[in-house]
Amino acid sequence: MHTTQLYYGAAYYDEYMPVSRVEEDMRLMKEAGMNVIRIAESTWSTWEPRDGEFDFTSLHRMLDGARKYGISVIVGTPSYAIPPWLAAKYPDILADTHAGPERYGRRQNMDITHPGYRAHCERIIRRLLAEVQPYENVIGFQLDNETKHYDTCGPRAQALFKQWLQNKFGTVEAMNQAFGLAYWSNSLGSWDDLPDVRGTINGSFAAEYEAFQRHLVTDFLLWQRRIVDEYRRPDQFVTHNFDYEWRGYSHGYQPDVDQFDAAQAVTVAGCDIYHPTGAALTGAEISFGGDVARALKGGENFFVLETQAQGPVGRLPQPGQLRLQAFAHLANGANMVEYWHWHSIHNGIESHWKGVLSHDLTPGATYREAATIGRDFARLGSRLANLRRRSPVAFVVSNRSLTGLKHSAAFAGPNYGDAVRWLYDALFRLNVPCDIVSDDTRDFSAYPLVVLPAVYCADDGLADALRRYAAGGGQILAGFRSLFADENVKIRTAAQPGGLTDVFGMTYDEFTVPVDVPQVSQWMELLRPDAGTQTLLRYDHPAYSMYAAATYHPYQKGGAAYIGAMLEPAALDALLEALLPRMGLALQPERWPLVIKEGENDAGHRLRYVLNYSAKQAAAAAPFACTELLGGQRYTAGQAVPLAGWGVAILEEDAGR
Amino acid sequence: MHTTQLYYGAAYYDEYMPVSRVEEDMRLMKEAGMNVIRIAESTWSTWEPRDGEFDFTSLHRMLDGARKYGISVIVGTPSYAIPPWLAAKYPDILADTHAGPERYGRRQNMDITHPGYRAHCERIIRRLLAEVQPYENVIGFQLDNETKHYDTCGPRAQALFKQWLQNKFGTVEAMNQAFGLAYWSNSLGSWDDLPDVRGTINGSFAAEYEAFQRHLVTDFLLWQRRIVDEYRRPDQFVTHNFDYEWRGYSHGYQPDVDQFDAAQAVTVAGCDIYHPTGAALTGAEISFGGDVARALKGGENFFVLETQAQGPVGRLPQPGQLRLQAFAHLANGANMVEYWHWHSIHNGIESHWKGVLSHDLTPGATYREAATIGRDFARLGSRLANLRRRSPVAFVVSNRSLTGLKHSAAFAGPNYGDAVRWLYDALFRLNVPCDIVSDDTRDFSAYPLVVLPAVYCADDGLADALRRYAAGGGQILAGFRSLFADENVKIRTAAQPGGLTDVFGMTYDEFTVPVDVPQVSQWMELLRPDAGTQTLLRYDHPAYSMYAAATYHPYQKGGAAYIGAMLEPAALDALLEALLPRMGLALQPERWPLVIKEGENDAGHRLRYVLNYSAKQAAAAAPFACTELLGGQRYTAGQAVPLAGWGVAILEEDAGR
Amino acid sequence: MHTTQLYYGAAYYDEYMPVSRVEEDMRLMKEAGMNVIRIAESTWSTWEPRDGEFDFTSLHRMLDGARKYGISVIVGTPSYAIPPWLAAKYPDILADTHAGPERYGRRQNMDITHPGYRAHCERIIRRLLAEVQPYENVIGFQLDNETKHYDTCGPRAQALFKQWLQNKFGTVEAMNQAFGLAYWSNSLGSWDDLPDVRGTINGSFAAEYEAFQRHLVTDFLLWQRRIVDEYRRPDQFVTHNFDYEWRGYSHGYQPDVDQFDAAQAVTVAGCDIYHPTGAALTGAEISFGGDVARALKGGENFFVLETQAQGPVGRLPQPGQLRLQAFAHLANGANMVEYWHWHSIHNGIESHWKGVLSHDLTPGATYREAATIGRDFARLGSRLANLRRRSPVAFVVSNRSLTGLKHSAAFAGPNYGDAVRWLYDALFRLNVPCDIVSDDTRDFSAYPLVVLPAVYCADDGLADALRRYAAGGGQILAGFRSLFADENVKIRTAAQPGGLTDVFGMTYDEFTVPVDVPQVSQWMELLRPDAGTQTLLRYDHPAYSMYAAATYHPYQKGGAAYIGAMLEPAALDALLEALLPRMGLALQPERWPLVIKEGENDAGHRLRYVLNYSAKQAAAAAPFACTELLGGQRYTAGQAVPLAGWGVAILEEDAGR
Repeated sequence: MHTTQLYYGAAYYDEYMPVSRVEEDMRLMKEAGMNVIRIAESTWSTWEPRDGEFDFTSLHRMLDGARKYGISVIVGTPSYAIPPWLAAKYPDILADTHAGPERYGRRQNMDITHPGYRAHCERIIRRLLAEVQPYENVIGFQLDNETKHYDTCGPRAQALFKQWLQNKFGTVEAMNQAFGLAYWSNSLGSWDDLPDVRGTINGSFAAEYEAFQRHLVTDFLLWQRRIVDEYRRPDQFVTHNFDYEWRGYSHGYQPDVDQFDAAQAVTVAGCDIYHPTGAALTGAEISFGGDVARALKGGENFFVLETQAQGPVGRLPQPGQLRLQAFAHLANGANMVEYWHWHSIHNGIESHWKGVLSHDLTPGATYREAATIGRDFARLGSRLANLRRRSPVAFVVSNRSLTGLKHSAAFAGPNYGDAVRWLYDALFRLNVPCDIVSDDTRDFSAYPLVVLPAVYCADDGLADALRRYAAGGGQILAGFRSLFADENVKIRTAAQPGGLTDVFGMTYDEFTVPVDVPQVSQWMELLRPDAGTQTLLRYDHPAYSMYAAATYHPYQKGGAAYIGAMLEPAALDALLEALLPRMGLALQPERWPLVIKEGENDAGHRLRYVLNYSAKQAAAAAPFACTELLGGQRYTAGQAVPLAGWGVAILEEDAGR
Repeated sequence: MHTTQLYYGAAYYDEYMPVSRVEEDMRLMKEAGMNVIRIAESTWSTWEPRDGEFDFTSLHRMLDGARKYGISVIVGTPSYAIPPWLAAKYPDILADTHAGPERYGRRQNMDITHPGYRAHCERIIRRLLAEVQPYENVIGFQLDNETKHYDTCGPRAQALFKQWLQNKFGTVEAMNQAFGLAYWSNSLGSWDDLPDVRGTINGSFAAEYEAFQRHLVTDFLLWQRRIVDEYRRPDQFVTHNFDYEWRGYSHGYQPDVDQFDAAQAVTVAGCDIYHPTGAALTGAEISFGGDVARALKGGENFFVLETQAQGPVGRLPQPGQLRLQAFAHLANGANMVEYWHWHSIHNGIESHWKGVLSHDLTPGATYREAATIGRDFARLGSRLANLRRRSPVAFVVSNRSLTGLKHSAAFAGPNYGDAVRWLYDALFRLNVPCDIVSDDTRDFSAYPLVVLPAVYCADDGLADALRRYAAGGGQILAGFRSLFADENVKIRTAAQPGGLTDVFGMTYDEFTVPVDVPQVSQWMELLRPDAGTQTLLRYDHPAYSMYAAATYHPYQKGGAAYIGAMLEPAALDALLEALLPRMGLALQPERWPLVIKEGENDAGHRLRYVLNYSAKQAAAAAPFACTELLGGQRYTAGQAVPLAGWGVAILEEDAGR
Repeated sequence: MHTTQLYYGAAYYDEYMPVSRVEEDMRLMKEAGMNVIRIAESTWSTWEPRDGEFDFTSLHRMLDGARKYGISVIVGTPSYAIPPWLAAKYPDILADTHAGPERYGRRQNMDITHPGYRAHCERIIRRLLAEVQPYENVIGFQLDNETKHYDTCGPRAQALFKQWLQNKFGTVEAMNQAFGLAYWSNSLGSWDDLPDVRGTINGSFAAEYEAFQRHLVTDFLLWQRRIVDEYRRPDQFVTHNFDYEWRGYSHGYQPDVDQFDAAQAVTVAGCDIYHPTGAALTGAEISFGGDVARALKGGENFFVLETQAQGPVGRLPQPGQLRLQAFAHLANGANMVEYWHWHSIHNGIESHWKGVLSHDLTPGATYREAATIGRDFARLGSRLANLRRRSPVAFVVSNRSLTGLKHSAAFAGPNYGDAVRWLYDALFRLNVPCDIVSDDTRDFSAYPLVVLPAVYCADDGLADALRRYAAGGGQILAGFRSLFADENVKIRTAAQPGGLTDVFGMTYDEFTVPVDVPQVSQWMELLRPDAGTQTLLRYDHPAYSMYAAATYHPYQKGGAAYIGAMLEPAALDALLEALLPRMGLALQPERWPLVIKEGENDAGHRLRYVLNYSAKQAAAAAPFACTELLGGQRYTAGQAVPLAGWGVAILEEDAGR
């Protein structure tokens, strides 16, 4: 979304506070340069304490307080956490999952297909939206929050799934064949005998159910969007807080949502990004999450709707890190940075996931550092907002492959998330900017290089597109396990990789787990290059020395590289450092912990962020004559720009558009 | 309980034996100097093989056999393990827990609120007590055994909990506010919508349920006490076998019972203490368990109703350790040491938890060492019994804090048990004697020093009491996490620690998990001392060097120290060794593995136990002219008392009262 | 089974293939020297897609194809994986287990006592057998596959168990006594109160239920055998695919089947053996599995019905290993080696458990190595088939002990499988050949040595047999924990070991887990030798130095050794290397990784396999004048036979019978 300023703020919950202090908080925010809050998405039971009985006292307190201090508001629909009375009204409203029926208590465990849930959702959304309509300072809406399917597996969901299968396959015989159900006597003779999906050992069947479940999420968000559209002004946006694979922090691509699909429901992409801090702050999660969010609406700027202030215990930022993080989000194309959350909470499961203020509700170290960011955002907003990023690399993500690899029955090798981050992080360390694209992409011609990290499941359309792309001059870099199976997780009978042996100029049919193979861990494929194919790396082991670990093959006007083994990071970096320039991609001289992100601002100037992910001082050469915006210092091309530990520099090229 | 002798013996189960051999066993016990057995608490199905059909053959065999050999008997009520017929009669008699309904088989998994259980309990207790009334050698009764609430969560328990909440809060609004239920839409609009407690993510609600469950234990034991009182002679005591947090051995304070509360049900406190042995025998568990038991009836002497003989596999005592352990119990104030158990059992889940005799029922190494103890207990009983201990330290334990910390949602830092033992063990190593006190204590004036280990939940009453205490001259030593939340696990909005910043002379609002911070593990708070407050320790890390790790602040007539980080044991010992004398506490010259325990005997003589928790020989200086009672050797003040590996010396001061 | 040739082949599933290619596959098999396939056991839903509707198209395609290429066929009854319609017809057909009711999906989770299951089983078996009757190339049948009891615990099974108990004990009092049910109030007053076995903490009761469950397996297989017998020709064999304790590979003796008992149902024993490969290929699993299979029909030759080709990910054989493995099976007495399986599968949970062909269905490295084996099997079949093995050692296995040890409540020490492999592997490394015998054996006189690895449960019959055996000149080698309990898992009251202190010339009553005891791990018993008993090893620890770790005692005409501690492998090897010759057992000069297996072939010649389980070249002296059959080279006695890395030599003595 194109804005005239940067947004900076925090999620705000008057409802959670032991004592209401909206006035004091808005004043403190204002003083810290904050200009936006997100409210209302978590507390349905506050807005509707009893069935049909509404109380928006706290809502108005927040809206009024924000208005008074000139603070914009994003209003969230409060559907992701249901009130006790609703759970009591419909005992089956809670999802029945692979682990059995859920109990009331936590959020995000209801059955989003439940008609009673939908009916009550609609009513509270309509009432809430009507309530906020008078407020000019409401700039947009957030649909639900971090929506998933919550593994709903009850009779209603499975009946819908049966229809889904019937629509897709028509006959049981077609499904038997596509999924290989003859195995272990699982062939269906009739749709009536469809067993509970939760017992299956057929990965295709299991993966199909997960695809169906992801579809439920898109369906649910589109349904909410239609309701919201009835109430919103043209200037108000609709967003959603997309999140990522969770490993205690935002690690990789979200397994439970087809985000490219679900993003149809919003006018601007939003996301939350949580990451390690302290000595473990590398910037990779910030970069990956931002790249995904930027991709969801075709490269448009996005919102970071949630990121950590003090974060959970053990993630307290060290001095300077809060600033570095905030500018890193901008460098990825964010137009908004919102902390989760303003206050620390005094009760509940996130009481130690701390906000901008600690529990004593007094400005502390985090608030003071945030205030410097707020001042810089306000001062430099017109130059920093709406950064246009350009990337030479299309980095393909694939829910199908994520699920397929999970159900591949390999019981070895890295999972999808690790395989993706293995390649992504190497590109990040080498300062190669990426655009994330979906595996539904069929035209890659805008990119000199396509990267396929463990794209395990690929339909014929993708395989054909890749061949055409390489024939036409494109360069492909595929990681191990790519293209192994079709879209139904059926392993291809064609020679690997994926029947594209002509493109890759090699094949393999054997793979194993490396034991005592230097520089390789978890997975290795025994590649057999054709004549004319370059072996980039061999295995250093007597039983495997006749096989290649990585190859490159010029194909028609383009070429294709393949890395068949999970190389240790240092070995992977070295390989890519040599390979990428040969594939036509010039590398920046900087390497992580110095991270470079570049784009163009509204004035048409090149804007280069230099981020120092290290406690040690560093320096980077200015690539052009420029002004460092934070300090105001001018630099000639080639001049060294100094960076403090965890420091950031923003270089604006002197000459613009 | 004041006695005229020491009690020494074992739990005895004629019912378990493949062949009855009461006569032989009583003879062997007598020869080993044993004078007490505990019987009957485990085998309801033996006493009542069918509903309403009683068989006390085995009971009389034991009572008669004991009487013949002059052995006293403690009779346990057999309610902690129900017979198969009772489980078959009431299928819902087994507790429905967080993990679902229990199955019949193991002990201690029934619903102690079940009316059918209570009715049958009462009948068997009355029948058993009537049966034993004629026996003069029955010296007392044990109520049930290691009673807990067994996590009963079924409809009956939850209905009682609803009443409990209504009594406490009156309105749902009051509870919503106290527990912060607005979070994630958990606010209640009506008592009718109270959800199953098992799903909650609200730590206050969860902690309240556990408080309710602990109350059920007290209620149950008081109910049994009233029945027993109808049958017992004035000279017969009532005890209970209180046990401790279980980590494969007795580790820390019991989570599932309010022992100070439940101890109302007994006339003399009893406990079981199991601990590591062999190279891992440190004495800390024996000391902690004994200190708790001594506290339960206001410092009175107590019974060790169970402790290990050969113990489970891997805990076989090394030569000398059985003696050391027995005298260590006396040193804590025990008047009874009873092994669990006499025979090793030939069937069932404790068949490898071995007794005084092995499965071959023949005197072996353990029996022979026990016999030396028995002789010494008999010979020295009048001098060793009824030891009066005095401690300068009130060491505060808190079920509320234990539960609160568990539900604090910190997901980091040590749990309560570890935090307690972290401080307790340091005092133990420095030979600082402690009295354990409950967090309900409001008058600490009898003690020069109050120690607060992770007293996470403190109500205003405790906070006020601490301020008064320090003002009046008391010294406070608080560990990290203390006073953070109120009694409802709501984190305080007042500045930490606990609004007592005036007393502690510092505050903090940030904390994290230490990474590469020397001498600190798991938890660190970033303390900001006021002017006039002494910084005892700083963090040795560039990002945290401006903060204190430990402080001391003189406050009015007293003072308050605070340790904000979990220091490694050696660093903690060094800190306390310097700090405690400055707080007015003189230290003994001995350090662990030499352990000193001191008190006064019936004759008014000082009695000093010197315990050598090491396989190496050692020596300690006699602090006064004395006789070493075990060997009869006389020592002048200052003379070296030699100790064998795992040895013990008992020094009786020459001059008495 | 005596054959005129060796069988070599693979399991074959036309049903699983995306495209049928029987003709091509049979041709490739033929070219690789393969002459047998196993079909049909996995795909009931293919043969009977709807209740009562049969389709044998694929079956005939396979049988016809095989016939055309002269390939023999084993037909499996398809009962181990039920079709979806059968699961839908009888929801309770799936086993209700300790973990709750099973869900449909995977194989081998039905209730084998279910009458509906039995009825439908019988119908499909009869239809299938009738269908294959015309085919001359069907050489035999496999009953079901890897049959177990699948932990069936539902009401039907528990009712049968009640009858089983009533038959065994008559009265509850007898059972109470045998099982020690008085413990924790578990005594039964009436059969009507028998609780669900799943809650029990009584190991005897739990072990009895497992014995009952194992009996169900035998009962089921015998029932199938009777059906098959109605259809088979006299020349057709009946076999079963017995498998072993599974730890990701075939580790030890099968817990869930009494294989010696169940083998009544077959005319020839079959088994599957899966094992580590690559650097982890030791040969021990192949040897152990083969020894068990050879034992099941009294030393007759057996079939390896399944073993790995490429195996699961991480078990890819290195060059030469496939050959080594195949000949190792022959060396154990196998007459058949069948891979699981021919094709790799393109769907389902075993899609990465790869066959002879990879997913590209093209001959690769594994196929090419297999073809060399096929040629050698065909060429040398008449010399290699029907190997007669002789072993001086009876190695006792015991389901009762396996279960008993599991339920012994020791919570320490190795489990049965580890204790068995601990001793077996040492004998394997020393090239001591073993015959596996059941603990029902009462006459050991054919063997100079009986080895008892953790035979924890032994009834009086076994104890008496051992005393007689030693008295008559036999040598006993018992491992720790042997003879501790009776057949009901009741620990003996007689002095250990097992009341045979006269035979072993020592006793012990204490045991513990070694801490800082050199060369000992997990378990140690403190042995007290009698005068006249030799101490083979003492504990090197101050607290235990007065005890023996291993003893030998001459007893009448024989003798008995006892190893009371789990020695580290090197220490165990050294002990046995010294001990076994003194017990009359001459050792081969070769040690692992050179493995020697010897027997006599049909021509009456000694046949010696020399297997090199190492990547390094090696050599072994020819023990007699011979021809190395694989290469045709002649050797004089004492001449060095060279072996490649992972190489094998087969030495046929020049002079025969």
